[in-house]
Amino acid sequence: MLVPTIDLNADIGESYGAWRMGDDDAVLDVVTSANIACGYHAGDPVTMLATLRAAARREVRIGAHVSYPDLVGFGRRELNCAGEEIAADVLYQLGALQALARSVGTFVRYVKPHGALYNRACADPDIAVVIADALASVGRIPVLLLAGSPGVAAAEGNGRPVVTEAFADRAYTPDGALAPRRHPGAVISDEAAVVERCLRLATDGTVITTDGTAIRIGARSLCLHGDTPNAAALARKAREALQAAGIGIAAFA
Amino acid sequence: MLVPTIDLNADIGESYGAWRMGDDDAVLDVVTSANIACGYHAGDPVTMLATLRAAARREVRIGAHVSYPDLVGFGRRELNCAGEEIAADVLYQLGALQALARSVGTFVRYVKPHGALYNRACADPDIAVVIADALASVGRIPVLLLAGSPGVAAAEGNGRPVVTEAFADRAYTPDGALAPRRHPGAVISDEAAVVERCLRLATDGTVITTDGTAIRIGARSLCLHGDTPNAAALARKAREALQAAGIGIAAFA
Amino acid sequence: MLVPTIDLNADIGESYGAWRMGDDDAVLDVVTSANIACGYHAGDPVTMLATLRAAARREVRIGAHVSYPDLVGFGRRELNCAGEEIAADVLYQLGALQALARSVGTFVRYVKPHGALYNRACADPDIAVVIADALASVGRIPVLLLAGSPGVAAAEGNGRPVVTEAFADRAYTPDGALAPRRHPGAVISDEAAVVERCLRLATDGTVITTDGTAIRIGARSLCLHGDTPNAAALARKAREALQAAGIGIAAFA
Amino acid sequence: MLVPTIDLNADIGESYGAWRMGDDDAVLDVVTSANIACGYHAGDPVTMLATLRAAARREVRIGAHVSYPDLVGFGRRELNCAGEEIAADVLYQLGALQALARSVGTFVRYVKPHGALYNRACADPDIAVVIADALASVGRIPVLLLAGSPGVAAAEGNGRPVVTEAFADRAYTPDGALAPRRHPGAVISDEAAVVERCLRLATDGTVITTDGTAIRIGARSLCLHGDTPNAAALARKAREALQAAGIGIAAFA
Repeated sequence: MLVPTIDLNADIGESYGAWRMGDDDAVLDVVTSANIACGYHAGDPVTMLATLRAAARREVRIGAHVSYPDLVGFGRRELNCAGEEIAADVLYQLGALQALARSVGTFVRYVKPHGALYNRACADPDIAVVIADALASVGRIPVLLLAGSPGVAAAEGNGRPVVTEAFADRAYTPDGALAPRRHPGAVISDEAAVVERCLRLATDGTVITTDGTAIRIGARSLCLHGDTPNAAALARKAREALQAAGIGIAAFA
Repeated sequence: MLVPTIDLNADIGESYGAWRMGDDDAVLDVVTSANIACGYHAGDPVTMLATLRAAARREVRIGAHVSYPDLVGFGRRELNCAGEEIAADVLYQLGALQALARSVGTFVRYVKPHGALYNRACADPDIAVVIADALASVGRIPVLLLAGSPGVAAAEGNGRPVVTEAFADRAYTPDGALAPRRHPGAVISDEAAVVERCLRLATDGTVITTDGTAIRIGARSLCLHGDTPNAAALARKAREALQAAGIGIAAFA
Repeated sequence: MLVPTIDLNADIGESYGAWRMGDDDAVLDVVTSANIACGYHAGDPVTMLATLRAAARREVRIGAHVSYPDLVGFGRRELNCAGEEIAADVLYQLGALQALARSVGTFVRYVKPHGALYNRACADPDIAVVIADALASVGRIPVLLLAGSPGVAAAEGNGRPVVTEAFADRAYTPDGALAPRRHPGAVISDEAAVVERCLRLATDGTVITTDGTAIRIGARSLCLHGDTPNAAALARKAREALQAAGIGIAAFA
Repeated sequence: MLVPTIDLNADIGESYGAWRMGDDDAVLDVVTSANIACGYHAGDPVTMLATLRAAARREVRIGAHVSYPDLVGFGRRELNCAGEEIAADVLYQLGALQALARSVGTFVRYVKPHGALYNRACADPDIAVVIADALASVGRIPVLLLAGSPGVAAAEGNGRPVVTEAFADRAYTPDGALAPRRHPGAVISDEAAVVERCLRLATDGTVITTDGTAIRIGARSLCLHGDTPNAAALARKAREALQAAGIGIAAFA
């Protein structure tokens, strides 16, 4: 019998210089994959090193959380970069994290676009391909994108390795897209509901959409948010519920 | 019979975004090693890619020209960073260039500190060791420093690979140090004199100091400046004179 | 009899740190209004001071050329800032230039958005109002926008002072919009044609559009480009032709 | 009879983009003068606006907390800028805050250098004069410096307005200098001791130095630290003790 298995990923290393953000230690105790900020939206080099050490100590897999260059906007504002700019920016950040990772005896296993770049890469097939092609030029590093999005189809169609993720705390529309954040109910804050959705996503790969129907998502990883103490506690509850249900918690890479 | 051999290095890739600097094509036609700016003092990722391609096309060896984070000051202002900050900043820049280099089929062979960081690394043994140790943590990448400087002795004393360089257009004091730039005659602009000094440095490894005596420098590379059209022409003259004198022009790495 | 009068404006002060851009001295000899970069896309504080002095010496009027925060992209990439971010960024840059101007005995008379922010302010009435309202909160400073654009109507409709400009080297569509740069013929490089269009715009306020019809633009200022030596020469020719035709060259503020 | 009066100042507005720092509301309820970060070490424009509104609402006086350009280092690392760079950077930051202040109906009354620039301005008479002269070029704005420091003497000797401050939580050497932070006992954490030192400084203007002797400091303001919740509580205790002792708490400007 095959045990269902899921990866848990979260954004960490989002401090910058004198500023602290998130409870990285608590989050790293829960997840199997850590998306580490690489200096463009957060994460100065000293912070990156400390984050890499903290992840490696727990054998949490390391991903490069690459962003538009927008520190003051935390990478959350769409910036109309050209494809060649995005490709170069992604490789710059990936390489920076790779060298720092190597210096502490570990390495980078995947790349996840952050914030506005994530939204664009999932929605715009051309940008997904730009990123996936850039990664292909330096090895065989998968890109982590939203399950069911046009970006996933485009990168896979181009023969690139992709890992898919779903959000247990976000509402999905019947066509499999995330409901926009500004819509009422787009973010699910009820802890029991989030845990229940985690279980569904990890067992049969489905989610209940905004019209009550179940659709298949089939994600390899669940994204847990980590920038509030509450989020770390919720992540822990989700993990415990998954384990209690006999689901394997394992990194994809 | 052993043919004397010298490497010629210059700083390139110092454009940034919409701003152009230097005549990189002309300089790359002359040198054997190219110190490529990595984003901290110059050289955005798109510029870095273009520079890497231009260097690789000519089989010019690639070095990471790493700097303090000071774009507006072009890395020329001393910034009192802690050692752990310098180590992390060096690895960040090196890694960024490594990934971009790999994407175009080449790789980084050495690291040269830029500007104020260069001055500090040459003068301060602790900082030279910080940088050399950081490099040792990711492979066996030599650091390029001023021949005869305390930094060279410290890094070598720590068992780290070091490549030494000399400046044909700078005056040396009798103790082997560079005369400070503010001193009259510190920078030698007479072309014939510079070429003559190149020949001396490449053949018997000596330089005539400010008091007229010759001292031994023994540098493996000569640094040619490249940020004016005139400098590129002078670099070409120096190269031609070296070749005419039967000296081998060859990269150190 | 009323003499037709036109203002000539150009972007200057676009150097940054060690990087030079444009022939500011030549441009300042021609224009009556200078759009000075304020640090977000170009123009570090030392450069701003030097530019202010150069403009004040010639009694050229000073405007703040305000941008999105995007140095590496030179402010040319659309950045999806919120209105409150734009308002605060505009005031930040304006105030910075105001203090530097005051320190050299001059002052700022208008604000012109730069690059992608200019395009957005001209096209999006809400953003034009955000900027005009921000300016109204610190005095009575006009905003310089594209004649005939929705932004002009919106800011004026809100009772804010607006100055309009036209481009003699850009093609206009029959509805009075600029032809997008990617269209063939969108940028007019023929010097005689540009000068001819300057004369038309300054005398009867019209321009010949892409379908050959003349439409009325009615701009108070002509924008001359200044970031190439050639552009400065063309600007001079345009000025001389305007003066020869008896048109007054005078700042609007 | 003259009531002794003291000003209380603290650093606020040190958040940046998505990052929060300090408990500004609690600190603003205690102090009479607020040193507001201006974007170089902290404080993006939106944060500056919010901080200005919070200070103005309580009639707390506003100062520009100007820094070296070093966001990742929080302005705490010495950067060897030239005098003309410092002058331009100070005016840039001051002007930015002035425009934002004006937009919310208030204004900037003084300038305090931050971090490494503060240390340099207090220790180096030339830099103190550079800053004071820059301020004189735009009005009559006092600079806030360490009581008894060479910087104070130099700026006052040049006829510039200076306000002096003392630190109740820092040890002083018998010659009136602050004991370096790395010395044991340099920072006084015992709350009762800090409050006691506040009272002494506010009443007879003296402090007990590291050798037990009392020396006269004579500061017009006390600097209270504000970047921890504990610091805000301590600041409140100090204020209450001063008021209980009949000392007037009043802004200097």
